[in-house]
Amino acid sequence: MTLTLYTLDWVPDFPRGFVRDLRVRWALEEVGQPYETATVPSRPKSDTHLGMQPFGQVPIIRDGDLTLFESGAILQHVARGTALFPDDRRAEISQWLFAALNTVEMATMHWQVMLLGQKFPDFFGPPPSGDVIDHAFAFAKTRLDAIEKRMATRDWIAGDFSIADIAMVDTLRNVASEGGLADHGALSAYLDRATARPAFERAMRDHMAHWQAADAARETETA
Amino acid sequence: MTLTLYTLDWVPDFPRGFVRDLRVRWALEEVGQPYETATVPSRPKSDTHLGMQPFGQVPIIRDGDLTLFESGAILQHVARGTALFPDDRRAEISQWLFAALNTVEMATMHWQVMLLGQKFPDFFGPPPSGDVIDHAFAFAKTRLDAIEKRMATRDWIAGDFSIADIAMVDTLRNVASEGGLADHGALSAYLDRATARPAFERAMRDHMAHWQAADAARETETA
Repeated sequence: MTLTLYTLDWVPDFPRGFVRDLRVRWALEEVGQPYETATVPSRPKSDTHLGMQPFGQVPIIRDGDLTLFESGAILQHVARGTALFPDDRRAEISQWLFAALNTVEMATMHWQVMLLGQKFPDFFGPPPSGDVIDHAFAFAKTRLDAIEKRMATRDWIAGDFSIADIAMVDTLRNVASEGGLADHGALSAYLDRATARPAFERAMRDHMAHWQAADAARETETA
Repeated sequence: MTLTLYTLDWVPDFPRGFVRDLRVRWALEEVGQPYETATVPSRPKSDTHLGMQPFGQVPIIRDGDLTLFESGAILQHVARGTALFPDDRRAEISQWLFAALNTVEMATMHWQVMLLGQKFPDFFGPPPSGDVIDHAFAFAKTRLDAIEKRMATRDWIAGDFSIADIAMVDTLRNVASEGGLADHGALSAYLDRATARPAFERAMRDHMAHWQAADAARETETA
């Protein structure tokens, strides 16, 4: 049975390229697993969606009888036993996968949510003052600096390319999009190296095509 | 060879009970694995520490030849194949483990860091204004509400007690300590149920005894 990847039916321009179905598409392309996509409404959230994912987030996959959410858990599941997550490097790769999501992204997202408050206060709430935002970045930078130092001497974060790179690179792409990697040459080179992979290029192409099709469907509905 | 758990040599009163070695102690007590503890200096960070953990955090474990950090990865490693993380529930338990760390804690920590700024501005930076903090809690509350609904009808988050409960409960204990669970009866009952487990009680006893011994060692040094 073909694996199904659920993403949102439509999003505005600003999160395109960053909705987390991209992480899963990338992993599926890397391991060569075919998949089909399905959608859940962006808003209001549907009962079907909340039944699969109680936080109303994406991505979600269906793989046979299994319904699974959380991009970290999905990456471990779809890559298990492949070159992206081989059993003999399981602990080290998981360590860097959790580091991407719970140490780096935890800090960078704290800063990014504050920036979103500045840009979209109606949606993301009142923006903090400049010095609060600066402090949040200074803290995130301590985490980025640690990764910068590590990536100065290697191509991938945990040996050969793995699901830890997918999570770390996707987190860092978000930071780069806000100008947060200006002082991190090794991390910028890491992003270039990762996003030049054919599997990333295919995943991003399909991810963006999905939103373009969603725009076209909306135009038809309102015509 | 006995597993070694690294924690900090000393911390002030406020994080005691919450330093993340507790998560690992709890899991080790649940699975019945003996361990010894070792320490790294709180500050300044030592080169030995940064060589094992580039972010300067704890916990870290040494298990034979393996050195491993990130509490999520350590929980998966020490519990693999036990009743806390059996192979036939691997995906579901991992899903809720990542949900605890990357969906719930990501949101609640954003709020808690702001509160820390109010209490300890010299250490945690300038505090945001009250409406910014309120908005951060309102966002975190959407995540807490989703878990509240789930826990209203079950004892543990993913079937029998698992490492997902250890991560979720430890995240929620932090929230409760700031009064953030006042409107969440099911979550408060979940915390009571979890923290009444003998393994949690042993873990917390040893965790607190570690800081008391650290105080005594400091007094001896300065005597």
